[in-house]
Amino acid sequence: MNMKINENFLKLSENFLFSLIAKKVKAFKEKNTDKEVISLGIGDVSLPLSKVVIDALVSASYEMGVKETFRGYPPEFGYDFIKDSIRKYYKKNNVDLDLDEVFVCDGAKSDLGNMVEILGDNRIVIPDPVYPVYVDSNMMAGRNILLLEGNEDNGFLPMPDGLSLEESVIYLCSPNNPTGAVYTRYQLEKWVEYAIKSRSLIIFDSAYEAFIRGDYPHSIFEIEGAKSCCVEISSFSKLAGFTGLRCSYSIVPKEILGGVFNKIWGRRQATKFNGVAWPVQKAAEAALTEAGLKACHENIDYYLENARILSNVLKKHNIWHTGGFNSPYLWVKCPKNMGSWEFFDYLLENAYIVTTPGVGFGESGEGYVRLTSFSTKENTIEAARRLDIILENLR
Amino acid sequence: MNMKINENFLKLSENFLFSLIAKKVKAFKEKNTDKEVISLGIGDVSLPLSKVVIDALVSASYEMGVKETFRGYPPEFGYDFIKDSIRKYYKKNNVDLDLDEVFVCDGAKSDLGNMVEILGDNRIVIPDPVYPVYVDSNMMAGRNILLLEGNEDNGFLPMPDGLSLEESVIYLCSPNNPTGAVYTRYQLEKWVEYAIKSRSLIIFDSAYEAFIRGDYPHSIFEIEGAKSCCVEISSFSKLAGFTGLRCSYSIVPKEILGGVFNKIWGRRQATKFNGVAWPVQKAAEAALTEAGLKACHENIDYYLENARILSNVLKKHNIWHTGGFNSPYLWVKCPKNMGSWEFFDYLLENAYIVTTPGVGFGESGEGYVRLTSFSTKENTIEAARRLDIILENLR
Repeated sequence: MNMKINENFLKLSENFLFSLIAKKVKAFKEKNTDKEVISLGIGDVSLPLSKVVIDALVSASYEMGVKETFRGYPPEFGYDFIKDSIRKYYKKNNVDLDLDEVFVCDGAKSDLGNMVEILGDNRIVIPDPVYPVYVDSNMMAGRNILLLEGNEDNGFLPMPDGLSLEESVIYLCSPNNPTGAVYTRYQLEKWVEYAIKSRSLIIFDSAYEAFIRGDYPHSIFEIEGAKSCCVEISSFSKLAGFTGLRCSYSIVPKEILGGVFNKIWGRRQATKFNGVAWPVQKAAEAALTEAGLKACHENIDYYLENARILSNVLKKHNIWHTGGFNSPYLWVKCPKNMGSWEFFDYLLENAYIVTTPGVGFGESGEGYVRLTSFSTKENTIEAARRLDIILENLR
Repeated sequence: MNMKINENFLKLSENFLFSLIAKKVKAFKEKNTDKEVISLGIGDVSLPLSKVVIDALVSASYEMGVKETFRGYPPEFGYDFIKDSIRKYYKKNNVDLDLDEVFVCDGAKSDLGNMVEILGDNRIVIPDPVYPVYVDSNMMAGRNILLLEGNEDNGFLPMPDGLSLEESVIYLCSPNNPTGAVYTRYQLEKWVEYAIKSRSLIIFDSAYEAFIRGDYPHSIFEIEGAKSCCVEISSFSKLAGFTGLRCSYSIVPKEILGGVFNKIWGRRQATKFNGVAWPVQKAAEAALTEAGLKACHENIDYYLENARILSNVLKKHNIWHTGGFNSPYLWVKCPKNMGSWEFFDYLLENAYIVTTPGVGFGESGEGYVRLTSFSTKENTIEAARRLDIILENLR
């Protein structure tokens, strides 16, 4: 067969990060059956869904078995009730949305990837290290990508200072995956100002906004002027523990390109997507009720407490890191100038702790590891105890 | 803002088909409050999910609320248990699949649309009339599309006779939406032969295969050689009434391009899709058990009986049509050389029956209307009674 394929796919390097980690952990466990290995590498939520969400999910599931309440194809952009719940959720942060600016989808990953389709051949600007989907999906489209270096100096929050690219597409993620760093209001104002001046578009990933407890923007639309130059992609995955249920949303303001961008995203979704399952939309609605949000925040508090425990032990030993609050992630500078994989091995072999090597998220991640707070509190405390000893020895 | 958008989106004509139908029906109902309008235009299933499916859906939903049984991110290509159930389902038709040739997704529409991404700039061949997603998603990618005319002579089953395009991508749908026509084994053999000879790829849409009761292939892979040149996209929507739950699958054989096509589809899905909800995959597994399939077939029999009732009244009046068996659709030639919209209006005004004008599915659909069997049996019988009178009058 000779029909043509998209050659850009052949240029992608394979990502062996998580398979290599799994291989190393397996080998260690086989040689050390007496050691209790704790993973601080988990990128997925671990607490079950709250009762209010399960009740809605089950009740809507039963409805699918009864003629009078059976539901077929959902609206491609989501039922009005869930779009309205999202609108009210944004209103808490003084962000006003129209219902037709909200597009409900099955995952932020889908939307982040699919939005590339409606864009032309723009220069793409992406902070590094970064959630790999931004880079990979743009490489699949053959785009020209500029990486902005994150480092100790900028606290892994690159700014547009000195940048002078006209008409580009900029990806920002705050609170950041993998670094846990959070842009301040002032910093986001600078980014929006830059986007307007350079006639660029910002794709803002706020998947971790529910972890914010300090005075940082939860949404890019809290920034004046953002509705003219930003789309925002968010999710129920980390807010409400929906990684196994699949529900997300994109906010595409009608102010961008005089409504054209909103319209073509709708056209893309109506043509290539058939909406989110009825029981899942009802579960998402329940998560955004007062009782639902209270339960969500209790789960997030549990993870944040784990993050604080890990952050405290790092602080005690003067280990530079970002995250640890307002985020489930900690981005930790390796002691003694160790490389990412070197410190990964060191922690696995000496503290039986699994981390994620920072270099796996981009070149600027070399010399760092990522810790996550998604383990149990008991395991997190034990991991902190071991870290305390290890870091003392490394002084 | 001047960042570039995908200009192909601006070339798409808006599809006003269903909004225009809704507008006409609304206007008629307002003027004729005493008339009972029956819709034979429904393209969605109407019967509720079976008990065996609901039990699995509810049970898996409860699991999400318990720490020990909570599930986070699903595997991007589907859990092995559902891929294995699909493999066994294909085995009934003597088709052998490997687990890594099965990709579970949220909808056939998504897969049909997204597969364009991994293809290069090939000539696209699509029968007309057609499910609009094939044409629209290729227009969004700026592809060169050749439409193959369906007509009374070929029974709306265009064949490759006389076609001599090298290296193209061919879309086939059987049983067909909107015509209900089904390719025979001999016809599909000819298509596969042509694909191999011309080094082309066939994208085979078998979403309606469960409606086949006669001796027609359910899968393109029943045809020898198909695994070297065909992918197949199918769904639980029409098999098991999952339009409101969202679960589909694509079969991408490893024989195509020495495994490269399977691999890049996997890469696309792993990068831009995060899998199907745990409760939905468990529900889909239940639908493919013996008890589940029995219940699915009972529902399909109900729709097929409706189709038979409609087909019989058309036959009585010698109205040429395709479908009516092996499909929920009937593709009906308008009497007296009426146009699609003319006959639509005539049926609405004189029999209070809503249809779908064939021209809405492509130029070759002019002069036809589509009837569907997704209404209730009572309404279908009443609609048939009215059609009988109308067609008598039109003789």
